[in-house]
Amino acid sequence: MKNQVNVGLLGFGTVGCGVYRILEKNQEELIQRTGYGIKIQKILVRDRDKKRDLQVDTELLTESVEDVTTNPEIDVVIEVMGGVEEAREYILSALNHHKHVVTANKDLLALYSGELLTTAANHDCDLYYEASVAGGIPIIRSLVGGLASDRITKMMGIVNGTTNYILTRMTKEGADYQEVLKDAQALGFAEADPSGDVEGLDAARKMVILSTLGFSMKFNLKDVQVQGISNISSEDIDYAGRLGYTIKLIGIAQKDEGRVEISVQPSLLPSDHPLSSVNNEFNAIYIYGESIGETMFYGPGAGQLPTATAVVSDLISVVQNMRMGVNGQSVVLPHNKTELKNDEDVYSKYFLRLYLKDEAGAFSKVSALFGNYHISIEKLIQQPLKEKGAAEIVMVTHQTNRAAFNQVLSELKGFDIVYDVISSYRIEGE
Amino acid sequence: MKNQVNVGLLGFGTVGCGVYRILEKNQEELIQRTGYGIKIQKILVRDRDKKRDLQVDTELLTESVEDVTTNPEIDVVIEVMGGVEEAREYILSALNHHKHVVTANKDLLALYSGELLTTAANHDCDLYYEASVAGGIPIIRSLVGGLASDRITKMMGIVNGTTNYILTRMTKEGADYQEVLKDAQALGFAEADPSGDVEGLDAARKMVILSTLGFSMKFNLKDVQVQGISNISSEDIDYAGRLGYTIKLIGIAQKDEGRVEISVQPSLLPSDHPLSSVNNEFNAIYIYGESIGETMFYGPGAGQLPTATAVVSDLISVVQNMRMGVNGQSVVLPHNKTELKNDEDVYSKYFLRLYLKDEAGAFSKVSALFGNYHISIEKLIQQPLKEKGAAEIVMVTHQTNRAAFNQVLSELKGFDIVYDVISSYRIEGE
Repeated sequence: MKNQVNVGLLGFGTVGCGVYRILEKNQEELIQRTGYGIKIQKILVRDRDKKRDLQVDTELLTESVEDVTTNPEIDVVIEVMGGVEEAREYILSALNHHKHVVTANKDLLALYSGELLTTAANHDCDLYYEASVAGGIPIIRSLVGGLASDRITKMMGIVNGTTNYILTRMTKEGADYQEVLKDAQALGFAEADPSGDVEGLDAARKMVILSTLGFSMKFNLKDVQVQGISNISSEDIDYAGRLGYTIKLIGIAQKDEGRVEISVQPSLLPSDHPLSSVNNEFNAIYIYGESIGETMFYGPGAGQLPTATAVVSDLISVVQNMRMGVNGQSVVLPHNKTELKNDEDVYSKYFLRLYLKDEAGAFSKVSALFGNYHISIEKLIQQPLKEKGAAEIVMVTHQTNRAAFNQVLSELKGFDIVYDVISSYRIEGE
Repeated sequence: MKNQVNVGLLGFGTVGCGVYRILEKNQEELIQRTGYGIKIQKILVRDRDKKRDLQVDTELLTESVEDVTTNPEIDVVIEVMGGVEEAREYILSALNHHKHVVTANKDLLALYSGELLTTAANHDCDLYYEASVAGGIPIIRSLVGGLASDRITKMMGIVNGTTNYILTRMTKEGADYQEVLKDAQALGFAEADPSGDVEGLDAARKMVILSTLGFSMKFNLKDVQVQGISNISSEDIDYAGRLGYTIKLIGIAQKDEGRVEISVQPSLLPSDHPLSSVNNEFNAIYIYGESIGETMFYGPGAGQLPTATAVVSDLISVVQNMRMGVNGQSVVLPHNKTELKNDEDVYSKYFLRLYLKDEAGAFSKVSALFGNYHISIEKLIQQPLKEKGAAEIVMVTHQTNRAAFNQVLSELKGFDIVYDVISSYRIEGE
């Protein structure tokens, strides 16, 4: 029996360098934990001659993917290059060459987890992906293991660090979205093209991964209703605060009687709700189970070392499986039929802000409309809006279904007494 | 290959009945997850004829432990009877008869984990104990798995639900300890003899289990400095609140340069610290790692179904290991040499409350004493104490070591200008 495991890295950016550093620094502990030495054998890069902060033996670097995915000396391939199509092709090649795979790639997992897991299982290979959701938080492992005996009913949380950073600063400083976004880009918390984060797509991918595991059903990105944070104004945040709420980008996956709702949207949470105090780039996820009640996981959602820690922990599991000769046996494929809820079955409270003409009977028309859809109003603020000779209305509804609320929104936009529907948000956590 | 796993239960109290219920209710999911049916074969009880809320086939019940621990039909023994010596003897017997064991018994683990794990490993048997710490929170699994690649530097949290329930009510209602304790006993949140909980011993046991795993060193209960909550007054809580702190019973395990401090004590946390808002019977544990930074786990610390969920999740792991033929291979024994810190090396801030004679120079004597030990004072409240013609002093120190602070405490008690040292608490989380 050999006593060394050889690893190939696909990609050598931030997370790749983090993995390299942890493997180098913790070599001794890794031997204690796994009984094997772990050695990086090859690293796929775009340009071998590029200057790098982290100095490594140039013999390790290659520009040819075959040196990694088909290299007979390599046992485990770690994919940290990002992107979808290339990464998919390379991982499939690695699995087809009987290499175990660890990946941090949520974009890929959200789209192709079925194909990848099936391929892994067919070749008795492991495919681990803890780092794909909420970086440093061992949430995948908890769903697969610690909560395995329970029936998960709901998962809800903050799963995107960039948007949480932006919303935290908007809330604390009363600053505008555009202003904070620019700052976040300068600080490296947001990308040059921030749309994947701020429009909610990144969070949606993570909710697909969590839902697939938690409910053991197949989901696609199109099953997620997604709304981003780019239209949130400092006025919205201010009004929410006055009503006792904090605005967060919240991912929700909820199952009732076998049918599931998955969504990502800016939501109002009571300011004393634990998720309201999850700030900056941190992530936190609530899991609700029939037996366990509620449990919550909090930690860094991204960052070089937290993400690399998750990757290396997966690698340790792979190596332990190698020692025991049981690779590929922990792959779990979804075994329930996917059933989605209709808008009629998704209930929540809503926050709504609109500008109304300041004329007799205007508000009673609005409230009659709510009445038609059996939506009752819990809180209301009305105040004059000087610039327009109009009234600003902010309201919080009681529980209603999404179909009814959307219908009210659309009819309001057609009313001649309504200048503008400024914003509306779901309310959660009460 | 057989397709059914037979389980024996030692004990049929609250948690045992919970395990029975979950196994019955989730039989179908268990088959999907493990490929085996799981059947309870025998249940050890003290009295077969006792009336029970949960009706089970009386053929399952036995008063003879051999029917469980040496029964050739039984594959896995679940120990949920509690207590130490009997439970130890029965578990050893089960392991010696090649049965895998799942236990929820923290008292036992804190004392005998070395012996039990070694016996398990020698017989290629599994020994799982997730439920022994923080009931529903999959913290053991996270330490063994998700954080395996990191070096844990600190673990800190609320690991006893009874004391947290009492402190929460004292804080929210301004109520006295004795009054709330009585109520907690009536409601079943505290036992008739509450000393194990309120004197911090239960929390200390859990910190021993966490530290053994997190630092991979052997520890004993006597390595933990323990202080309970029974001397906390509503005045202390009130003063803490005025200074911006909340009092919680906090377990701390911290490693610096290879040496460890483990303690359990009522501690002041900043009121906006996430642990300050962990209320009632909930538990929460922060884990700090060199790479991951901080991560936190929150959930129900006890209760029938949360604890039973952890037990059944362990059972699923055992059954999956059986399917793969790798039982006993995930047992991890401590591999670092145990080294404990001295009091000189344990640093924190402190809260101190005392009654001082109202005479010239009294306070300057006190502050000179602090100066002698290089302890500087960050916050101070002084006010007259009508009943005694004395002054009440409440102070918060800067960082100091435990040896110096204890020395100051002992000298203060000898000062003729000091009527009484009322209370002192460690301050954490700043």
